[in-house]
Amino acid sequence: MVRTEIKGIFPPITTPFKNGQIAYDELASNVRRWNRTGINGFVVLGSNGEYVYLSEDEKRKVVDTVVQSSSADMPVIVGSGSESTQETIRSTKIYADLGANAALVVTPHYFGGKMSSIALENHFAQVADKVPIPIMIYSVPKFTHLEMTADSIIRLSKHPNIIGIKESSGNVGFLGELINRVDVNFNLVVGTASALFGALTLGCVGGILALANLAPEKCVEIFRLVEKGDAKAAKKLQLKMIPVNKAVTTTYGISGLKAAMDLLGYFGGAPRLPLLPISQKDRSRIEEILQQADLLQ
Amino acid sequence: MVRTEIKGIFPPITTPFKNGQIAYDELASNVRRWNRTGINGFVVLGSNGEYVYLSEDEKRKVVDTVVQSSSADMPVIVGSGSESTQETIRSTKIYADLGANAALVVTPHYFGGKMSSIALENHFAQVADKVPIPIMIYSVPKFTHLEMTADSIIRLSKHPNIIGIKESSGNVGFLGELINRVDVNFNLVVGTASALFGALTLGCVGGILALANLAPEKCVEIFRLVEKGDAKAAKKLQLKMIPVNKAVTTTYGISGLKAAMDLLGYFGGAPRLPLLPISQKDRSRIEEILQQADLLQ
Amino acid sequence: MVRTEIKGIFPPITTPFKNGQIAYDELASNVRRWNRTGINGFVVLGSNGEYVYLSEDEKRKVVDTVVQSSSADMPVIVGSGSESTQETIRSTKIYADLGANAALVVTPHYFGGKMSSIALENHFAQVADKVPIPIMIYSVPKFTHLEMTADSIIRLSKHPNIIGIKESSGNVGFLGELINRVDVNFNLVVGTASALFGALTLGCVGGILALANLAPEKCVEIFRLVEKGDAKAAKKLQLKMIPVNKAVTTTYGISGLKAAMDLLGYFGGAPRLPLLPISQKDRSRIEEILQQADLLQ
Amino acid sequence: MVRTEIKGIFPPITTPFKNGQIAYDELASNVRRWNRTGINGFVVLGSNGEYVYLSEDEKRKVVDTVVQSSSADMPVIVGSGSESTQETIRSTKIYADLGANAALVVTPHYFGGKMSSIALENHFAQVADKVPIPIMIYSVPKFTHLEMTADSIIRLSKHPNIIGIKESSGNVGFLGELINRVDVNFNLVVGTASALFGALTLGCVGGILALANLAPEKCVEIFRLVEKGDAKAAKKLQLKMIPVNKAVTTTYGISGLKAAMDLLGYFGGAPRLPLLPISQKDRSRIEEILQQADLLQ
Repeated sequence: MVRTEIKGIFPPITTPFKNGQIAYDELASNVRRWNRTGINGFVVLGSNGEYVYLSEDEKRKVVDTVVQSSSADMPVIVGSGSESTQETIRSTKIYADLGANAALVVTPHYFGGKMSSIALENHFAQVADKVPIPIMIYSVPKFTHLEMTADSIIRLSKHPNIIGIKESSGNVGFLGELINRVDVNFNLVVGTASALFGALTLGCVGGILALANLAPEKCVEIFRLVEKGDAKAAKKLQLKMIPVNKAVTTTYGISGLKAAMDLLGYFGGAPRLPLLPISQKDRSRIEEILQQADLLQ
Repeated sequence: MVRTEIKGIFPPITTPFKNGQIAYDELASNVRRWNRTGINGFVVLGSNGEYVYLSEDEKRKVVDTVVQSSSADMPVIVGSGSESTQETIRSTKIYADLGANAALVVTPHYFGGKMSSIALENHFAQVADKVPIPIMIYSVPKFTHLEMTADSIIRLSKHPNIIGIKESSGNVGFLGELINRVDVNFNLVVGTASALFGALTLGCVGGILALANLAPEKCVEIFRLVEKGDAKAAKKLQLKMIPVNKAVTTTYGISGLKAAMDLLGYFGGAPRLPLLPISQKDRSRIEEILQQADLLQ
Repeated sequence: MVRTEIKGIFPPITTPFKNGQIAYDELASNVRRWNRTGINGFVVLGSNGEYVYLSEDEKRKVVDTVVQSSSADMPVIVGSGSESTQETIRSTKIYADLGANAALVVTPHYFGGKMSSIALENHFAQVADKVPIPIMIYSVPKFTHLEMTADSIIRLSKHPNIIGIKESSGNVGFLGELINRVDVNFNLVVGTASALFGALTLGCVGGILALANLAPEKCVEIFRLVEKGDAKAAKKLQLKMIPVNKAVTTTYGISGLKAAMDLLGYFGGAPRLPLLPISQKDRSRIEEILQQADLLQ
Repeated sequence: MVRTEIKGIFPPITTPFKNGQIAYDELASNVRRWNRTGINGFVVLGSNGEYVYLSEDEKRKVVDTVVQSSSADMPVIVGSGSESTQETIRSTKIYADLGANAALVVTPHYFGGKMSSIALENHFAQVADKVPIPIMIYSVPKFTHLEMTADSIIRLSKHPNIIGIKESSGNVGFLGELINRVDVNFNLVVGTASALFGALTLGCVGGILALANLAPEKCVEIFRLVEKGDAKAAKKLQLKMIPVNKAVTTTYGISGLKAAMDLLGYFGGAPRLPLLPISQKDRSRIEEILQQADLLQ
């Protein structure tokens, strides 16, 4: 198997709904617009894609839609993780058949107290052994309440079919420890836009960033500025994006992310229940934040 | 709609696997044995049933198997909760068609930071409104990292189709607050065997208890002793069961629970991956604990 | 050394302030009133005594005041714990000289990540070895964010000079595990009034209860009802006290506890900063709660 | 009052003990060695100074010793925070009289549930109003289990006598939010060496770093490299220091920090109980880590 390079900016794209049903045309239309923003690929069925709310059938159709509408040169990484090892393998194979280039596998976490290092490493190794596409580890303690140890990640980084990790803590000390010790071909990808500049400066190779749903060009610009060594301009843009990123993640969540997309010309729409749609007041607040960051006139 | 009384002892039954596939015959055989233990009904597809590891198709067959093999007078409560409101409604209807008498609906929790009281209450109310069988709230912070407030539970207790809660914290102060304030027809059911005596004494009406998978008669005996006012004998038996319960929940988890079932004549077997089977050493330790509690000679 | 029996109800008394300075006369006057309520002794310099806000000199004077004004037959238990082992020994000796009958020693917790079972057990054993009065373990995870394991408590229960524990979790499963396994002479004392009935029924010997500051007679009554086997009446009174206890602990904290004392004829007063005094609105709410529990006409 | 600039590297110095008593000569000798390392000042009575284990009298002598033995041009910042507002004011004044240039005031946290934004802001404002030297906020959730909100920090940053914060989370997103919004003269100082490069690159002005106890020259070098724009060399050195920093903080704590100091020619010694001295095996492991980082030959 060949290592896939995960480099640059990847939006973990949202799933658009109309009246609670997936709006596939709007999804394709969003993808076609993202194709032209300078991003390097797509993440589908991630947390921001509300994968926990989709049926198996819907998931397949979403993957198919994105594979069909995305630029040929852009890898499509599909969130295929579930609680069960066997089910993760099964669905990863399905997405591979549909054209996914890699799979993003979330840490199983429901029985968190029993997800020892051994259990987690065994899960990822078994999945990696048995699927036809490379996998990335998806560690997102905010949602899973589970932290993988640096040692586990480092051991898994040596598996030829585990090509990277989306690390979402924003903790540069932890990232630094990984950078020091993971396999040289392992891709460290930061999972939160507020830490993008810091993580790239330290040696991360890219970002899977909610913010890239609405402001892909800005994320790409930070990436390029760091690449060409202009730390000053990169930092300036990073600081400007922090309030926006906070609004569309911690403060207002997916409802806020989708509202911001609506304001910026993408199809956002409402999330599925039990997530509640955003209030008019919060929508106005998001509009203000976008204006202050010069994303909206 | 009529209130269903959830009274007495209900095992949240395990799902037996052979070589990773569901062993339906062994499941039916376990159920037939439980039928004769004095328990009052079954909970299927709960956490101990490893519902997070089952496919939709498997879930339906498990429900069907239990409905077919359980005594006619024993209610079958089915875990039908999932992250999505719409999906929870859909699957609850399916289980109702298969003969489920009530549904146990876990709190959605993946986007825990957005599961406000309003979002959670809306979720449960919408489900309760739209399904043909009564529902119970399933609050299990150990797995979900989400605590429902007493106020939310109290408000929901007034909904005609929400008939109770499985409360798994073991905190008698919190249970007392609920007992004081929930609707008079709302069933408070304790979710951990170590708190059974304390919860019944305070006013809970029953227990959905992992321990009832392997020692249903003992759980039933505690219930009956409290019912007839023999607190001394009930307490004595409760204290005797605490080490067993700790072993098959906190210490060794579902793997330990299944090992204990094997030792006591039920079909336990191994859990599904990523849960690891129990080591020989831990199995011996469980054997000792069962002996000390006079469950094994 | 002789084991001291800690049986019955002990208020962990508040420290009254006037203009930020300790009001020793009001303290003595409160104590004289508590003397006549049926309680079994006093806990001084506990969390509700705002011990973390008192200087060494103030602490000595508070102990002296309580020793002098309490009934001769009532043991005075003094909170003498601090982060340092050596300092805990030093101050326990001072309080012993002032007439304290036992010391309540909180788990050190600032460097919680390093407070291993070995470190904690060594701390308590060293203190117990070197002080002239018996000690009780004070485990209060709500404030310390540190939980002692059952195994540590059980091992320490065998030390001849460690006579008990104030356990504040309210978890009857954990209490049951302790009851099963601690030394026969070790006193298990419950630390939260909402769990009083449940804990006594299970085998605890008493309670150190914030609620006993304002409603000592009711706490004593629950204790006596359980002692004489009237579980029904005990439960009824317990349930009635739960809203009051919640108000003066979780909801409004020490400010609320002191406000309730003021309303019931004790001197409560304001807490020390940074704790803020209670608002007029919250005070009215507490008044209502006291009325609903028939503590106020 | 004039703003004090807190710029560069400050070790939060350890307190040396011999047989459990403070070794003032060794403290002075350590300080004289640090004087020549390029650091910019000292932090005394911080967490690494085991301030929670020192008596009032000892604290005064420690401050006096450091003020006397430190270079005249190096500010001495003294940890003066305690749970009580009044006591914090009192002790800050004492340290000011002894020559402290600024005070580091930890967030009160014992009654964490009542430390609302209002309570905390009131505490810091009252202290700042009433003491003769400028104060810095010390937010260290690892020990206090309390997080100040960005909004609180931002509001307090406008107080003329609150000159900065030691922020110890290592989260660059949170730091970025502060950098965007705090008062222009407010000093953002990073509190963990693993985040030093990331924090400086983003705009922090310095670091108060456990690592600077043993490797002050390396911390200073990272600071200077960032200052002159050599991100590549700074990053390289940062990455090299991460394993050392992890060893002397998270993994082995203060015992490990002091062991590393011993190995590098400072007087480290043992911590006070209940902290346990380091094992011989762990000491050897630290030696290896120092060698791998080229701090030891």
